[in-house]
Amino acid sequence: MGKTAIRTACKVSLDTPASEQPYLHNRWHPDIPSAASIKDGETVKIECLDWTGGQILNTDNADDVRNVDLTRVHYLSGPFEIEGAAPGDLLLVEIMDVQPFEDQPWGFTGVFDKGNGGGFLDEIYPSAAKAIWDFEGIFCTSRHIPHVKFAGLIHPGILGCAPSAEVLNTWNTREAELIAANKLADRDVALPPQPLNVHAGSADEELTARIGREGARTIPGRPEHGGNCDIKNLSRGSKVYLPVHVAGAKFSVGDLHFSQGDGEISFCGAIEMAGVITINFKVIKNGMADLGLKSPIYIPGPVEPQFGPGRQIFFEGFSVDQHGKQHYLDVAVAYRQTTLRIIEYLRRFGYSDYQVYLLLSCAPIQGHVAGLVDIPNACTTIGLPMDIFDFDISPSAVPAKKLDMGSCAFETGVEEGKITAGGKNSESSFGGGLSYKE
Amino acid sequence: MGKTAIRTACKVSLDTPASEQPYLHNRWHPDIPSAASIKDGETVKIECLDWTGGQILNTDNADDVRNVDLTRVHYLSGPFEIEGAAPGDLLLVEIMDVQPFEDQPWGFTGVFDKGNGGGFLDEIYPSAAKAIWDFEGIFCTSRHIPHVKFAGLIHPGILGCAPSAEVLNTWNTREAELIAANKLADRDVALPPQPLNVHAGSADEELTARIGREGARTIPGRPEHGGNCDIKNLSRGSKVYLPVHVAGAKFSVGDLHFSQGDGEISFCGAIEMAGVITINFKVIKNGMADLGLKSPIYIPGPVEPQFGPGRQIFFEGFSVDQHGKQHYLDVAVAYRQTTLRIIEYLRRFGYSDYQVYLLLSCAPIQGHVAGLVDIPNACTTIGLPMDIFDFDISPSAVPAKKLDMGSCAFETGVEEGKITAGGKNSESSFGGGLSYKE
Amino acid sequence: MGKTAIRTACKVSLDTPASEQPYLHNRWHPDIPSAASIKDGETVKIECLDWTGGQILNTDNADDVRNVDLTRVHYLSGPFEIEGAAPGDLLLVEIMDVQPFEDQPWGFTGVFDKGNGGGFLDEIYPSAAKAIWDFEGIFCTSRHIPHVKFAGLIHPGILGCAPSAEVLNTWNTREAELIAANKLADRDVALPPQPLNVHAGSADEELTARIGREGARTIPGRPEHGGNCDIKNLSRGSKVYLPVHVAGAKFSVGDLHFSQGDGEISFCGAIEMAGVITINFKVIKNGMADLGLKSPIYIPGPVEPQFGPGRQIFFEGFSVDQHGKQHYLDVAVAYRQTTLRIIEYLRRFGYSDYQVYLLLSCAPIQGHVAGLVDIPNACTTIGLPMDIFDFDISPSAVPAKKLDMGSCAFETGVEEGKITAGGKNSESSFGGGLSYKE
Amino acid sequence: MGKTAIRTACKVSLDTPASEQPYLHNRWHPDIPSAASIKDGETVKIECLDWTGGQILNTDNADDVRNVDLTRVHYLSGPFEIEGAAPGDLLLVEIMDVQPFEDQPWGFTGVFDKGNGGGFLDEIYPSAAKAIWDFEGIFCTSRHIPHVKFAGLIHPGILGCAPSAEVLNTWNTREAELIAANKLADRDVALPPQPLNVHAGSADEELTARIGREGARTIPGRPEHGGNCDIKNLSRGSKVYLPVHVAGAKFSVGDLHFSQGDGEISFCGAIEMAGVITINFKVIKNGMADLGLKSPIYIPGPVEPQFGPGRQIFFEGFSVDQHGKQHYLDVAVAYRQTTLRIIEYLRRFGYSDYQVYLLLSCAPIQGHVAGLVDIPNACTTIGLPMDIFDFDISPSAVPAKKLDMGSCAFETGVEEGKITAGGKNSESSFGGGLSYKE
Repeated sequence: MGKTAIRTACKVSLDTPASEQPYLHNRWHPDIPSAASIKDGETVKIECLDWTGGQILNTDNADDVRNVDLTRVHYLSGPFEIEGAAPGDLLLVEIMDVQPFEDQPWGFTGVFDKGNGGGFLDEIYPSAAKAIWDFEGIFCTSRHIPHVKFAGLIHPGILGCAPSAEVLNTWNTREAELIAANKLADRDVALPPQPLNVHAGSADEELTARIGREGARTIPGRPEHGGNCDIKNLSRGSKVYLPVHVAGAKFSVGDLHFSQGDGEISFCGAIEMAGVITINFKVIKNGMADLGLKSPIYIPGPVEPQFGPGRQIFFEGFSVDQHGKQHYLDVAVAYRQTTLRIIEYLRRFGYSDYQVYLLLSCAPIQGHVAGLVDIPNACTTIGLPMDIFDFDISPSAVPAKKLDMGSCAFETGVEEGKITAGGKNSESSFGGGLSYKE
Repeated sequence: MGKTAIRTACKVSLDTPASEQPYLHNRWHPDIPSAASIKDGETVKIECLDWTGGQILNTDNADDVRNVDLTRVHYLSGPFEIEGAAPGDLLLVEIMDVQPFEDQPWGFTGVFDKGNGGGFLDEIYPSAAKAIWDFEGIFCTSRHIPHVKFAGLIHPGILGCAPSAEVLNTWNTREAELIAANKLADRDVALPPQPLNVHAGSADEELTARIGREGARTIPGRPEHGGNCDIKNLSRGSKVYLPVHVAGAKFSVGDLHFSQGDGEISFCGAIEMAGVITINFKVIKNGMADLGLKSPIYIPGPVEPQFGPGRQIFFEGFSVDQHGKQHYLDVAVAYRQTTLRIIEYLRRFGYSDYQVYLLLSCAPIQGHVAGLVDIPNACTTIGLPMDIFDFDISPSAVPAKKLDMGSCAFETGVEEGKITAGGKNSESSFGGGLSYKE
Repeated sequence: MGKTAIRTACKVSLDTPASEQPYLHNRWHPDIPSAASIKDGETVKIECLDWTGGQILNTDNADDVRNVDLTRVHYLSGPFEIEGAAPGDLLLVEIMDVQPFEDQPWGFTGVFDKGNGGGFLDEIYPSAAKAIWDFEGIFCTSRHIPHVKFAGLIHPGILGCAPSAEVLNTWNTREAELIAANKLADRDVALPPQPLNVHAGSADEELTARIGREGARTIPGRPEHGGNCDIKNLSRGSKVYLPVHVAGAKFSVGDLHFSQGDGEISFCGAIEMAGVITINFKVIKNGMADLGLKSPIYIPGPVEPQFGPGRQIFFEGFSVDQHGKQHYLDVAVAYRQTTLRIIEYLRRFGYSDYQVYLLLSCAPIQGHVAGLVDIPNACTTIGLPMDIFDFDISPSAVPAKKLDMGSCAFETGVEEGKITAGGKNSESSFGGGLSYKE
Repeated sequence: MGKTAIRTACKVSLDTPASEQPYLHNRWHPDIPSAASIKDGETVKIECLDWTGGQILNTDNADDVRNVDLTRVHYLSGPFEIEGAAPGDLLLVEIMDVQPFEDQPWGFTGVFDKGNGGGFLDEIYPSAAKAIWDFEGIFCTSRHIPHVKFAGLIHPGILGCAPSAEVLNTWNTREAELIAANKLADRDVALPPQPLNVHAGSADEELTARIGREGARTIPGRPEHGGNCDIKNLSRGSKVYLPVHVAGAKFSVGDLHFSQGDGEISFCGAIEMAGVITINFKVIKNGMADLGLKSPIYIPGPVEPQFGPGRQIFFEGFSVDQHGKQHYLDVAVAYRQTTLRIIEYLRRFGYSDYQVYLLLSCAPIQGHVAGLVDIPNACTTIGLPMDIFDFDISPSAVPAKKLDMGSCAFETGVEEGKITAGGKNSESSFGGGLSYKE
């Protein structure tokens, strides 16, 4: 009699290369072998590596971020066979808990080098940078961004069921069309299947090769299954309703985040971590048609960190870019401007621009679409919670003496807003108290 | 001894044409004569017409929406001279209250005809439609969208200080460039100065003519002063910090909303109303530089309607449009998809697509930017509060019997999702229980 | 077509003595003539005087509080006949709004003289004191308690349906028994019917006399109908389910509060005001038996002022009194100690004890029963919202310079914590920066 | 480089008798040997047994609850020496996390037999009863109270610093006076020092004996140090400011609760569990005088489970007892009536009275002091969150078919509301669907 501990459906190792672990995979494909089977109604624990599979270290140098190998990502745990699930069903995934590993109580936030992944503000902040976050219970702090502490809005960045062959084909076709139509773009607009460094769990060589040729990359979320949706509020207690496209659902999960801000603007922008997620699974037969769902929906859990509305400063941004150019209802331009307004605002307290860029990526900022029909200006707002700072950042604050804000980690050749030999930035082009070029 | 009632700084008439009232204006220009003077630190009441100046009636027919004259809008109250305000200052505007007029306890939400203003979903829903909302205290209901009741998140859609001549010139120049660059677009991308129907308060004929030639339209919000930002949370108790560009600030306000959803997707999408706003004004000398502000910021008030996180269904949308086409990190496409997911979801309870379109525009939905760096898919989410419905809309709800959902108001020739003689829609192109064409 | 303004079911005059107004009454009795009839389902406005009927003035002297005539209170509006209501039904009262009169934007909080009404802390603070509050929209401030501003949690202190003759008899009997059993107590333990100053609306002389002999006083709430429950959260949007004891329900309401703290410790402790309440009425047939209700229940509205949990300081109190005496699970003793802990805490910022006593009565403090079975100590907690102060009161605050806190209003002979000729306090017995005697 | 896992300052064993473990103790006394030393500023993990030291089992029978030995309780972990703490300081205890043991994911709620501890409603419900709760991540459910699931408001029931000899003497004196004054009471009013089963950690026999004679029992919280305050909101992220009375503070903690309702009405009423608490300690020199504190204060953490205000039903209770007797401003009587109203309300859904009694003890109900000066009736309210039930309990719910509610665990001889041979209850005296005698 009595309840025993919850079963762990999938264990990972922090000491073995991710590419050698059989219950991990880094592509979406219906034929990746199942890692385990889970009963309808069962609750299990699933261990996950961080999304890079351990490429980023707990150091004060961002060369690991600059050199990250994006053909390897994301390492996901699974896929898991959910008994009784069939195409057309919904898989109800209730996130009972997410925790970092007890003996690895830290995570990282990175700004990618513009030449390797980049991010939302890479035209202004092109260098690789990093902040390491230490976890103590529900809270995190960083030696790279002092005077900040907040409770994690912990969640998986990625969860979803495997695509069917037909769905996979749809993905590859429409993304290829986008790539074809933008051949001359100065940056990648989408990532086609990539055989290099494909990892398909316990698949044999031949299957792995095929998955490499056909399998969808895990970078984008996609409407048919969710995937890398990066929704910060998919935290403890959330219920997610996921479309099922193959027999057994083949559910995968990974890319755990201790916290993230709306937009996850720096791409590697959440507080990325390895850890354990506890999930209850239920199958809702014929749910897609019955509920009229084409994409996942979710209901948040009850324990989100609460800040009263009056404890957030909301910044407004419009679709006029930093060069003064008017864009037509471009929400991304407006959102970028909104983030820049916060960077400018926090300078007076001593933070460098890169520190704020990192912070906005991972702290629980609220990014809202305010208005998007008042031509030509879309308007977005971002709420910055004042209570994550241990000093007063309100508009009425008088920053009497500058606090020592130290520095985030930079790639070699870029330090503290000064350029050293080999650094790629010109002094005027990024922060550290300096204004970006407009 | 004792406090007397708060002074009303500006009265409007519901019986006189808006164009004849001296304390209203419908363009942004530094030379519009001041309507009144307000002391630094003073609290006053300001009456406002609805944004159209009374063009929309409390009827069950949407012809007034179809025929609305957009050269006249928005009728704003002011401008008000704030004593002591000078360029470079911030004007701290604290919204002490917003109320509809006691003897006009109703408002309207409109979907504009695609040929006259349009809206976020006009390719799918091109017809004019309307819902009238009745106010009882803090709540509103509509005979056009039954089984819904919610507390207003009441706020002004527009508030801001007048542009300086230099700021105005910047606006006109950059918007003209956008228009010039998009000459062949099938819709307006911006609205240049429009002499027709210009109303400049008490300006004489000559000044009015000049303001008509130079004055900026009030449709878009703009980064330098805010204006028509349409931020739903700028409600009771909010503090807004507005940049001052001219001596005396010349503050204007209007476009009162009883409620609005993030995005205000149907353009005339809030619950538009006439009413009274009570504001306290304070001048923060040299605030723009001291706080590093280029655009307004605000801190919400404490009395926003509260729904627990677990009482909202969040819908996800991605930048793949309804034709299956992949877009590159286009947040607007993702947001449109998110709204369509809700329309599809609510059909099973008996609502027509137009009813939901109207509802999403004005109910307090939470629109979030979730992720916008995972190429090629931006992801947005919208939280739909379950408790605004008087029946269960949760995923586990069993819609036993269809409720009688009646109909919203349509323009002549379009009724209840059936096309009648003269109607512009083909039967397959819009809802009423029918699926839109994909 | 179109909604007209909401009907006012009962008007009051601020210029006529309360005792002469026909739609007011100050006793509970089934035979008080109805003031008006209201339809099942109807929404109406009801005007109310403040509970004293205008005895307290907007002045800086508390003699009016010292001399208040408690035989006259509370002046309630009604009773209202609700069509179709019968004994055994529930009356669902939805509070659509509560507002002060526009031309009387102020209210008062009083500490009663120990010899005339007293209050929760009258052994320590025996003098009459007063604070006048000015309203601006949703907010209030007081010249008598500087550096405080908060949004009102506006509500009626009293609402309920008339007792039947049988219920009234139960009340009078059990309260008489309490009085009889405590004849020697040094204070009133209950208030029996009191013919003096009885006001029974439009009743004739004979009926009025009978009501004076039989009618229950309005001071206490009572389980059978609610009445003077003084629940601070019965604010805008609340739904209250009230037992019906007589045909037509005979609903009355009054004692409007702009705000109140849990406990309303100073008796006249809310921010008392005159104003207008808007109510929707619905009859639930046979509701008492169907829902198993013996006393009212309610569901709060959605617009309560929100403070994040981390923005409240919670003080703990136990059932050991200020003389060091241990009481047995006495929650009132614990609650009194909790309030004293707050008074002590706020002294260092410069407030006098009476100012804090007044503030705790009317500000939205959260009073919780923590534990009440751990013999011999009951434990209660009170949450004090930090954001109602315009300076930092957190434990880490450094009160650099004392703020000028002025003074609340006192009765003649008692000023600023100094005793003047004729004052009843010895200098050591109450605050004003001084410690109370323990 | 890099953060290592947090140190565990105290380990306990689930297999060794609590009375044999050196880092546990069950009395308050300044001379209990320290279990470990902790640095000012350090964060540590502290393991704790459940408060009974393992007396209650995961079974379906409540004989263990009936027979619990209260001379043994509570087993606390510690005391811990905090470096640098001295009398007059405050110890700032920040609760970084609380978790059950991973391999013991369950807890218990008990109603004590009236003859052995009893509880708040023991005159009506005198039998021992029990509910076992299973934990899955943040949630708990019970086979003994079906159709309920909620997120834990996890916290320590007891935390505090050791009393000085002087403080201890104060406690013993004043509680002895209470006992002496109530010699003829039919129940214990306080518990004097009890040498039987005293456990003083690693103390030798002589010291243990002295602590047995002098040491204060752990049952009550006390104003000077907090102790068993049973405050449900002292959860993750809370900061508690504790008075220090001896050198090194000698901090102890235990009595972990997965959840508790305000009042913890059934005495063993929380969801009692063993587990691990993670705490950060900081010493505030001279804090008692600087902050004017005589008792602990705390600031709640940000991750409390959130229910919107409109998702709670508030029940009202007044100080008229179930026999119809009027009490004078007795808050405990009012609170008892409030709990009885909920029991009556939930009967119609099929729950037995004992099930609801257990549920109200441990679920996150909000118990408020509403009014306590309106002679003779105190009024209290309790908010019952609707969303902890998996069916609709709102007033408008139609309980179509009775759900199968099973039964809680009872002591032998009492089952399902029927009395069997040897049972102590008469059938009419307690619930199980039956009304209690009034």
